[in-house]
Amino acid sequence: MKSVLLFDVNESLLDLGALAPQFERVFGNGQILYQWFGQVLQTAMLTVITQQYSDFSSVGRSALDMMAEKHGISLTDDDRTSIVGGMRTMPPHPDVLPGFEKLRAAGYRMASLTNSPPAVARAQLENAGIAPFLDNIISVDDVKSLKPAAKVYHYAAGVMGVEPAQTRLIAAHSWDVAGAMSAGCKAAFISRPGMVLNPLFERPDVVAPDLLQVADQIIAAEA
Amino acid sequence: MKSVLLFDVNESLLDLGALAPQFERVFGNGQILYQWFGQVLQTAMLTVITQQYSDFSSVGRSALDMMAEKHGISLTDDDRTSIVGGMRTMPPHPDVLPGFEKLRAAGYRMASLTNSPPAVARAQLENAGIAPFLDNIISVDDVKSLKPAAKVYHYAAGVMGVEPAQTRLIAAHSWDVAGAMSAGCKAAFISRPGMVLNPLFERPDVVAPDLLQVADQIIAAEA
Repeated sequence: MKSVLLFDVNESLLDLGALAPQFERVFGNGQILYQWFGQVLQTAMLTVITQQYSDFSSVGRSALDMMAEKHGISLTDDDRTSIVGGMRTMPPHPDVLPGFEKLRAAGYRMASLTNSPPAVARAQLENAGIAPFLDNIISVDDVKSLKPAAKVYHYAAGVMGVEPAQTRLIAAHSWDVAGAMSAGCKAAFISRPGMVLNPLFERPDVVAPDLLQVADQIIAAEA
Repeated sequence: MKSVLLFDVNESLLDLGALAPQFERVFGNGQILYQWFGQVLQTAMLTVITQQYSDFSSVGRSALDMMAEKHGISLTDDDRTSIVGGMRTMPPHPDVLPGFEKLRAAGYRMASLTNSPPAVARAQLENAGIAPFLDNIISVDDVKSLKPAAKVYHYAAGVMGVEPAQTRLIAAHSWDVAGAMSAGCKAAFISRPGMVLNPLFERPDVVAPDLLQVADQIIAAEA
């Protein structure tokens, strides 16, 4: 039976590298982008563990303030807005729209499941041309928790009217794949450059370097 | 009333930078050390969220394998052993032993609370000359969870025979401070170079750049 496909958005579908020029401008080093996003993820997990929910844009701004303090930089409100706001207009990786075409042709039901707040997620997916492929843009804000909390994946399954085992989370992040599988979902890992699976957690049955090949593998595995 | 003091070990008391030459040798870049330790922490949090406990040495080795795959390096068993095993012999930061002298003179009861497995923690603290100051070396392994899970801090309070509110966690990590405070403990943050607090979480009443100044502030705050 065909899974309902749940797509992570930041890095998995959209190219976070588009923010590098902003970090180059503000910090004098575009690579700080990845240090920042690492802190964003750490804080997201910390909000899950401590059950102190914050929306993902607040998490992004706080991580930016931490990077600024760490590197002895003063940030203006414009700096914060241009970086966090820049997440709304990141381009899709080149394989993404053809991958969605293939999955739509194969008859899959699809939704996004990102930590981004609802308005940001909608803007991201519309700007990238992905929204028309999706049956739903599911918001973690409705359950006041961020991924990789199990209840987020369970909520998404409920919104799509299926059990968690009938969903498949697709992401370029090992922690998202591990969180989804731990919550009883299937998963697929997009092994984008620099992205690797965590060997401590179960390996998904679908692993490929781009969404076209991920789509082929999903279609073959579920035929 | 005097708190029971619970000390984080890696980076907070011991200088992780001692491992940089191993990363320089294996990866050709000592700075990969910090990327590795970031992955170690991310995996630790993921084990808490998914409730799939692994001991911290296994977490360390798996994170090393992820760094190797990410950077296209082949690791030998000797490489793994020399890096993860090297954590046993990291030197204390120069302020640490004088800080403990001061706290002992002030009559504090003290214990370590690190994610390191029991045998590693004992070796680390003995090699660094810290063990004689401690009333207890408390193991997260006894509760099969890693920090920053609340139950680890609660367990440590129980081992010391006090309520969580009567303990104070001392660390150079914002996530450890946030986890402890969220679990009802007091905390103190050692603001070592490059270490900053997370503005999304409550600020501890004690913040200072080294253990001597942290000790002074704790003694003053609890007088």
